[in-house]
Amino acid sequence: MKLLQDRIIRDGKVLPGNIIKVDGFLNHRVDISLLKELAEEFYQTFADDKPTVILTVEASGIALAAITAERFGLPMLFAKKAKSDNIEGGLYKSEIFSYTYKKAVNLIVSAEWLGAGDRVLVIDDFLANGEALRGVIDIAHQANAEVVGVGVAVEKGFQPGGQKLRDAGYKLHSLAIIEKADENNIVFREE
Amino acid sequence: MKLLQDRIIRDGKVLPGNIIKVDGFLNHRVDISLLKELAEEFYQTFADDKPTVILTVEASGIALAAITAERFGLPMLFAKKAKSDNIEGGLYKSEIFSYTYKKAVNLIVSAEWLGAGDRVLVIDDFLANGEALRGVIDIAHQANAEVVGVGVAVEKGFQPGGQKLRDAGYKLHSLAIIEKADENNIVFREE
Repeated sequence: MKLLQDRIIRDGKVLPGNIIKVDGFLNHRVDISLLKELAEEFYQTFADDKPTVILTVEASGIALAAITAERFGLPMLFAKKAKSDNIEGGLYKSEIFSYTYKKAVNLIVSAEWLGAGDRVLVIDDFLANGEALRGVIDIAHQANAEVVGVGVAVEKGFQPGGQKLRDAGYKLHSLAIIEKADENNIVFREE
Repeated sequence: MKLLQDRIIRDGKVLPGNIIKVDGFLNHRVDISLLKELAEEFYQTFADDKPTVILTVEASGIALAAITAERFGLPMLFAKKAKSDNIEGGLYKSEIFSYTYKKAVNLIVSAEWLGAGDRVLVIDDFLANGEALRGVIDIAHQANAEVVGVGVAVEKGFQPGGQKLRDAGYKLHSLAIIEKADENNIVFREE
């Protein structure tokens, strides 16, 4: 998606360790008008797959998932990290490795809010190793829900998460796929 | 706000320990169409205060803050909990006590995205002891920004956070204030 590629070129930064910093518009300070354009693109891509719920992971996926859910007219559900007092009873749980926090983290979703018959569109801001998405997809399967699509704003094409999802047969749409990035240059995969 | 009170009565639950469970529509599974109504109410209340940015705290405040930011046509900024690799350089930081996680947590905001001249509208889903809001207000002050208002969906009126903010002179608008709650009954403060 050219709009997002241009924004990454203009306002993104590459830090040592292949960290793509987009915290001025995507995952810290969030440009809601940009998210609306991204949500529209997800709508065009996934409307025919008739999702019933938008599923994401806290924290940085929530804003994009909320704006996407608004476009679809659907509820948004976010997996929580680790234990919270405020969820009782039956839980779906999936352990992932968090590269941000450098430790294992449990994703949890209350069994009350996801079930058989749900058609899940997974939305996240970032896809690198794919651990967070693996976790929420695992949770959707525990719920006997169907994952009808996965929409991601920025995919790091040089890390394995995206390929794993495509190999597993998921309909993955990444709005910008970064092939290569260093401090002077960001190269996107051709659309 | 009657719409929100009615929804809390209909779909909320009170758990032992005065935990108000609204995770079916506000802070786990999120009813975006409800959030749009809440955002409209914040807009009517705070538009004249001319905010330049909507500030919240991860994770459960983000969806409401995003939809509110959309209504105002403003960017949304969320304070992160604890350390993340993806923020470099200057940070504002405030230590709060998290009742959810039962430990001290640092809230951080990149100094790049908040500064003097900003007029901050703080938005959060919940106000109880007020620790999270104290932290983000502290951060706004570190940035020499002005806090023009605080908008909260649900306030627990029997805990001290709301009164502290009012006593400190902040323009606080809580859309539903719960005076008393037990397993059989939820009583709201008169508007």
